Amino acid sequence: MTPLIREHALVEQLVSHLPRCAGQRNGLFESDAELVQVNEGTSLALAVTTDAIVEEIESGLYADPFLIGWMTVMANMSDLAAVGAEPLGLLIAETLPHDMLPSDRRALQEGIRDAALVVGTGVLGGDTNVGSHLHMTGTAIGIVRGGNAMSRVGCRVGDLVYATGPLGIGNAFAAATFMHTPGDPPRFRPRARIREGLFLRTFATSCMDTSDGLFATLDQLGRLNGIGFHLDQDWEGKIAPEARELALRAGLPPWMLLCGPHGEFELLFTVPSDVEQKMIESAASERLPLWHLGTVTEEPGVTLPRGGHFTPVALAAVQNREVRAASEVSSFLDFLRDIGECAQRSTER
Amino acid sequence: MTPLIREHALVEQLVSHLPRCAGQRNGLFESDAELVQVNEGTSLALAVTTDAIVEEIESGLYADPFLIGWMTVMANMSDLAAVGAEPLGLLIAETLPHDMLPSDRRALQEGIRDAALVVGTGVLGGDTNVGSHLHMTGTAIGIVRGGNAMSRVGCRVGDLVYATGPLGIGNAFAAATFMHTPGDPPRFRPRARIREGLFLRTFATSCMDTSDGLFATLDQLGRLNGIGFHLDQDWEGKIAPEARELALRAGLPPWMLLCGPHGEFELLFTVPSDVEQKMIESAASERLPLWHLGTVTEEPGVTLPRGGHFTPVALAAVQNREVRAASEVSSFLDFLRDIGECAQRSTER
Repeated sequence: MTPLIREHALVEQLVSHLPRCAGQRNGLFESDAELVQVNEGTSLALAVTTDAIVEEIESGLYADPFLIGWMTVMANMSDLAAVGAEPLGLLIAETLPHDMLPSDRRALQEGIRDAALVVGTGVLGGDTNVGSHLHMTGTAIGIVRGGNAMSRVGCRVGDLVYATGPLGIGNAFAAATFMHTPGDPPRFRPRARIREGLFLRTFATSCMDTSDGLFATLDQLGRLNGIGFHLDQDWEGKIAPEARELALRAGLPPWMLLCGPHGEFELLFTVPSDVEQKMIESAASERLPLWHLGTVTEEPGVTLPRGGHFTPVALAAVQNREVRAASEVSSFLDFLRDIGECAQRSTER
Repeated sequence: MTPLIREHALVEQLVSHLPRCAGQRNGLFESDAELVQVNEGTSLALAVTTDAIVEEIESGLYADPFLIGWMTVMANMSDLAAVGAEPLGLLIAETLPHDMLPSDRRALQEGIRDAALVVGTGVLGGDTNVGSHLHMTGTAIGIVRGGNAMSRVGCRVGDLVYATGPLGIGNAFAAATFMHTPGDPPRFRPRARIREGLFLRTFATSCMDTSDGLFATLDQLGRLNGIGFHLDQDWEGKIAPEARELALRAGLPPWMLLCGPHGEFELLFTVPSDVEQKMIESAASERLPLWHLGTVTEEPGVTLPRGGHFTPVALAAVQNREVRAASEVSSFLDFLRDIGECAQRSTER
């Protein structure tokens, strides 16, 4: 029995009685965006996804209105990227507080605008409300031409694990925000990897964005595919330099930045070893960076070099602290401490 | 100069700098759902829309979790209906309060489920968050085959005005809820007119749902098309019987139920007089009810039989009371009183 993630259990309970859609291709949790067949007999599929920015606003992690607007776009676009969809556009439902400053309102819209421009999409429409609290919900609509969307399901033992960029910046930003570390906080402006997602469709056997951090992503892929991961000898070298610097200043072991729940919105994907070389060459010619992380293993969990091993049980235990874990300052620190202890215990076995 | 509606001005200000989408067919405010061309050269268009239930929850108008779930679906599906789209599915982003009762959570999901079943669609996916307040955002995805989507723009002087059902139930429900009128409150379970929308695509020159009440709908169509409306002699006869009863019990003139801001989610549409007969016959054979309301006129505003006339200025003045007008008990009553005075003044000119 794979141990339950409480947040997944809540979602399963909520959706268990809801009617499903005839054209839907993916099952629950199986892909970052929902995949829908538009017409029978055609190879055109839609990718749609919705994401609200709630805990990050309530906890104060996203306090800058520009960042809130930016993330309302990027969190959704990143889900499109992970299935290899081409964006058609965004819908933005915003609830603005009665007393929101005009300058904050402007910054919020500028964040939406700049993020949309960066990924080359636009805003189709939305819904504007005035209410007691700032609340932002984005929806991204994309299409998958040719029908070969990526999903989280499909990786096999022996596949190689890659990411589209260095990791750890989300948790470094959270640590800097919550712990008030000395020096400038690292800049947090994730970019949805749309171009990379389109490129990867030809190669990847599974793909998921790292919006919840590397370890949660590996854990989810492991559960869905009944496999585990072995990370490379130099896996801590895949941490972004500015995240590593922050960790040093804060006195945190850098690897904790890969375990925390605040991700960097890179794509994590698997490729069969016999297409690896071709992918590397194609990526080089398109100037897309690729970061080798490890290998898919038969043994579940995440195995670290030098004997460390996170079991799914340990990962679930950490993730189950509270549904709202890591959305409050003290929870975030407890989260890091606990996952550190888990790793310690696992390493000592 | 058409007077500004303040809420529209806010939306215009918010979106003015946002990038638009290449495939989008409609302009701002021009249709209930956004219309997007999927592929150049095909006649397939997507209809997408997002709607959050905010003021209704904060004001206590929707206190029943089942109704909140139901409306999260129906408000969005109604926008699809108004463009004549066929639903592909829903996305639901929900933020549930930490302390929400399991029974309330269940009722919320049942509302979503029952509403989706009634309109024959399903839930593709969503986003579940835990936060300080209940917040629900729905997104509906639909397709328009053949490309002839309906919009709010296109009606001409002389066109006839129809609705898909009797009116007033939304404001009757609001009046009963806010004024605690004696007797049972009228049942409020609007049904998105998906089937009617598909039917109307062949006939209607413009279409909009009455989610904001009849007068706001007429006012919006009037502004967009540079026209006005003359209502039929027996226009008060188009009020739903249970709404009329409520008005009598509450001591409100029944016509106020058409002026308030809480609509009934019927479709309001216009047809050229030379296709009216054919439409009536087709509707009868499909057992779709049609309610004749009036005529499109050159003079702006809404003209009532026996000399009454709401000018766009009067309507704008009422709608501009506050962006959050009518989302609080006292505002709702003030709203009704003011619009009554406007009508009075107009009638006396």
